[in-house]
Amino acid sequence: MIDPEVLQRLSATLAQRKSAAPESSYVSSLYAKGTDAICKKVAEEAAETIMAAKDGDLRHIVYEVTDLWFHSLILLSQFGLSADDVLGELRRREGISGIEEKNARKS
Amino acid sequence: MIDPEVLQRLSATLAQRKSAAPESSYVSSLYAKGTDAICKKVAEEAAETIMAAKDGDLRHIVYEVTDLWFHSLILLSQFGLSADDVLGELRRREGISGIEEKNARKS
Amino acid sequence: MIDPEVLQRLSATLAQRKSAAPESSYVSSLYAKGTDAICKKVAEEAAETIMAAKDGDLRHIVYEVTDLWFHSLILLSQFGLSADDVLGELRRREGISGIEEKNARKS
Amino acid sequence: MIDPEVLQRLSATLAQRKSAAPESSYVSSLYAKGTDAICKKVAEEAAETIMAAKDGDLRHIVYEVTDLWFHSLILLSQFGLSADDVLGELRRREGISGIEEKNARKS
Repeated sequence: MIDPEVLQRLSATLAQRKSAAPESSYVSSLYAKGTDAICKKVAEEAAETIMAAKDGDLRHIVYEVTDLWFHSLILLSQFGLSADDVLGELRRREGISGIEEKNARKS
Repeated sequence: MIDPEVLQRLSATLAQRKSAAPESSYVSSLYAKGTDAICKKVAEEAAETIMAAKDGDLRHIVYEVTDLWFHSLILLSQFGLSADDVLGELRRREGISGIEEKNARKS
Repeated sequence: MIDPEVLQRLSATLAQRKSAAPESSYVSSLYAKGTDAICKKVAEEAAETIMAAKDGDLRHIVYEVTDLWFHSLILLSQFGLSADDVLGELRRREGISGIEEKNARKS
Repeated sequence: MIDPEVLQRLSATLAQRKSAAPESSYVSSLYAKGTDAICKKVAEEAAETIMAAKDGDLRHIVYEVTDLWFHSLILLSQFGLSADDVLGELRRREGISGIEEKNARKS
């Protein structure tokens, strides 16, 4: 199993780049361009994910979903949010579905 | 810090649902509808993420990015892939950027 | 050649439906749901256009681009705009590119 | 009313550029890059349309829908299709809805 903390490390790194000079990295330049530019990248990576899926090219699918998540993390960071907010929401839903399952078993 | 293994647990659960009856859950019905239906959901959640970002509504952004990742995981699972493939690709890029940083420091 | 005024007739029809009861038609219900619901449909139809293109299915491509334009017209109408605004912008660009071509020929 | 034939003139111009050298224009270079590159532009313009709508910026909405239709026309042309195919499909639907309306009035 891959060390899942990679997401949180990446999220922390992305947060640090917010205060860096725009010309210092791709990520810093994207923050500087603002929310619309980041959103456009999210849309673009979603489209590329879909095209990779249509091609049925497994390596490409992994690559594009990674790009999609990467740019989602930049968007979260733009709003002071992080990977933990999404993981926390997944945990919350996990809990809910657990309760639902329990109720389903009782009835 | 949130337990990051939630992604891998979810990915494993989604993989199990592939063999369940289509009517047994939302996820099972989505697999049954096929790749185009899953791709359409990925596009839809990307659009909702963008709209939440334009609204600057933090709770909504987290909710929509979670939906986007959730449906990305279903797409991965449709192709026999999992969260680990994306986390592995992030790990690989982490390594590369480390090496690049080292090279940058040398030169 | 197809009668191109179909676009303007459709645009006028869509504008009329804005004042109709939400339950009277698909279009009226979409207006009632608001801008986000219309935007979501635009995103969805763009994704379906891309998937039809990846399939190389000509009939399907025409069908999905038609759906994309149809929902773009609803979006325009939601903001008191019409097909004429887009056709006018195309006319304006046609003019510009004409001038540019002329300049290019001179130099 | 704007001369609606602008769409068909543009569609004819775009078809001509398919045989031009890739470096001769933006459109020719896009054809040369292939279907995925054109699809990516369609997705991008759909995202920009949505963002303009969220901003409620009328000029920007018209501009982005025009870009979306423009790139849809390039995609059609890539497959040997044209504006007439979409206008024809709209005409066909107009007919159908006319019949449906007639039936609705009878019953």
